[in-house]
Amino acid sequence: MKIAIAGAGAMGCSYGHMLKQAGNDVVLLDNWEDHVNKINESGLKVNEVGQEKVTYIKAYKPSDYHEKVDLVIVFTKSLQLNSFLQQIKHLLTEDTKVLCLLNGLGHIETLSQYTHKENIYMGVTVVTARFTNVNEPANVSFSSYGKTEIENVVSSKEAERFGKLIAQTINDSGLPCEFVDNIYWSIWRKACLNGCMNSLCTILDSNMLDLGKINNIEYIINSVIKEFAAIASTEGISLDIDEMTKFVMSFTAETFSGAKHFPSMHQDLIRNHRLTEVDYLNGYVSRRGKELNIPTPFNDLITVLVHGKEYLLQAK
Amino acid sequence: MKIAIAGAGAMGCSYGHMLKQAGNDVVLLDNWEDHVNKINESGLKVNEVGQEKVTYIKAYKPSDYHEKVDLVIVFTKSLQLNSFLQQIKHLLTEDTKVLCLLNGLGHIETLSQYTHKENIYMGVTVVTARFTNVNEPANVSFSSYGKTEIENVVSSKEAERFGKLIAQTINDSGLPCEFVDNIYWSIWRKACLNGCMNSLCTILDSNMLDLGKINNIEYIINSVIKEFAAIASTEGISLDIDEMTKFVMSFTAETFSGAKHFPSMHQDLIRNHRLTEVDYLNGYVSRRGKELNIPTPFNDLITVLVHGKEYLLQAK
Repeated sequence: MKIAIAGAGAMGCSYGHMLKQAGNDVVLLDNWEDHVNKINESGLKVNEVGQEKVTYIKAYKPSDYHEKVDLVIVFTKSLQLNSFLQQIKHLLTEDTKVLCLLNGLGHIETLSQYTHKENIYMGVTVVTARFTNVNEPANVSFSSYGKTEIENVVSSKEAERFGKLIAQTINDSGLPCEFVDNIYWSIWRKACLNGCMNSLCTILDSNMLDLGKINNIEYIINSVIKEFAAIASTEGISLDIDEMTKFVMSFTAETFSGAKHFPSMHQDLIRNHRLTEVDYLNGYVSRRGKELNIPTPFNDLITVLVHGKEYLLQAK
Repeated sequence: MKIAIAGAGAMGCSYGHMLKQAGNDVVLLDNWEDHVNKINESGLKVNEVGQEKVTYIKAYKPSDYHEKVDLVIVFTKSLQLNSFLQQIKHLLTEDTKVLCLLNGLGHIETLSQYTHKENIYMGVTVVTARFTNVNEPANVSFSSYGKTEIENVVSSKEAERFGKLIAQTINDSGLPCEFVDNIYWSIWRKACLNGCMNSLCTILDSNMLDLGKINNIEYIINSVIKEFAAIASTEGISLDIDEMTKFVMSFTAETFSGAKHFPSMHQDLIRNHRLTEVDYLNGYVSRRGKELNIPTPFNDLITVLVHGKEYLLQAK
């Protein structure tokens, strides 16, 4: 399959590396010039679950690449999705498929402005990747072959056939991938998790373990999730609020090995003073609530507080 | 008038100094031993609106003082009110009056456990005072002769007569003091201000000027105040939500000279890792909301976040 990875951050590079290694025709598209040049000059270094590898893969600035591809896998930051699609709209022909593996809510709205819904596939992944050294191009790491789930957005035999083919292709590359029939549920579930852990740990400058020890935090998390569920239900997705609360709380447990980690939003904003994805999590719930006249006070306040922190830290 | 100041912090000392200087029989009661000893050895240093003065005034540990007084002016921290009253309950005889000038809500409940409501007077002051040097005993400063308002809690001719006498006594000491008929409104008004400025600036680590520049912060402040107003109305107090929102927002204006200050709760918690008075502000609204089945989501979340910060900073 001929695949373009749109957004070659740590996640895009990790997927690109796996897919290329398995024999697919893969290119990386990114706006970071040093990164693109270094990949082309000396290959992409990848620490693949502990093994050091180098993949020789072509990288381009988005506007410099014009070949027809079967599939674009979107791996930008949520905030950059729209502007990146603008830069690659020449690649999004009538029959080019687009798989979006971004965190957060509301991306289909954006994607639909650039391609037919029939071409769109949504997915969720539990892989987490990072640049091995901050600011060093062409060198990424990921620590587990986490599972990916994908599904077509518009139901049709052809969409299902191609969706299964994408899933098979990713799976064959060594990243377990399943074609599912409830991807929206999975997207909302992950958004609930991030809308609680990312946002609250960022506001309070806390890791997940400590967050979980705060008095009445479960009541707050439950309240945030109730509002997510109210908006999800307007989109035909049913979330079990109690089950979801337990799921989110499980990330704060002593028994969860990653509980002492600071979530990615905390790293982005508090450490690196970068703008957050809150508008695709709590901010999405808050905005849809206003549009639909559904009260979402917890998410309203969380959204304003995270944006407040962005303003105070002069995040860019 | 024979007056005991219960809680000789910066505020208690400033009032004690003014009242003593005007010829009243005043003693200071406090648990900080070095402070009490130093005051007794070499007097209380007071920077009174720019003038350096020394007042020779007797200070005692609360349990060491047993003389009958006409009036106890309560100036503890909100959190210490109950335990301090416990220590001076021998002073609270049938006809001893108690004036409470503490910030925050819910203090009458506590005071009523130690004396008849007929003896209680509530007040609000805009004086702000501080220890001149952190941790140096017997040396305080205050920068303006701000206004004090007081009123009796239970209506009676005698309560009114004595209330006016207290007001006159404070006024004669050089601190403008008015006997009013809407002290609860003033208490709620100040609580709204502190429940917004103190709590939000503490959560976000911001001064008031910067807080005011955050996107949608006025919507948040308006929402917080709506919940204060809902609880206030159950106590017979009517707050004009729009007027109150403008009042609170005025503290964030470029034109307000104090806007660059960090509110006292920020200083307590973020700088000095001390427990806050949030349970007497947002926490009171939240708690009464639960009891009365009135939703108070904004204050619920703010209360949990401030307590969360206390936990994370190991405040004491």
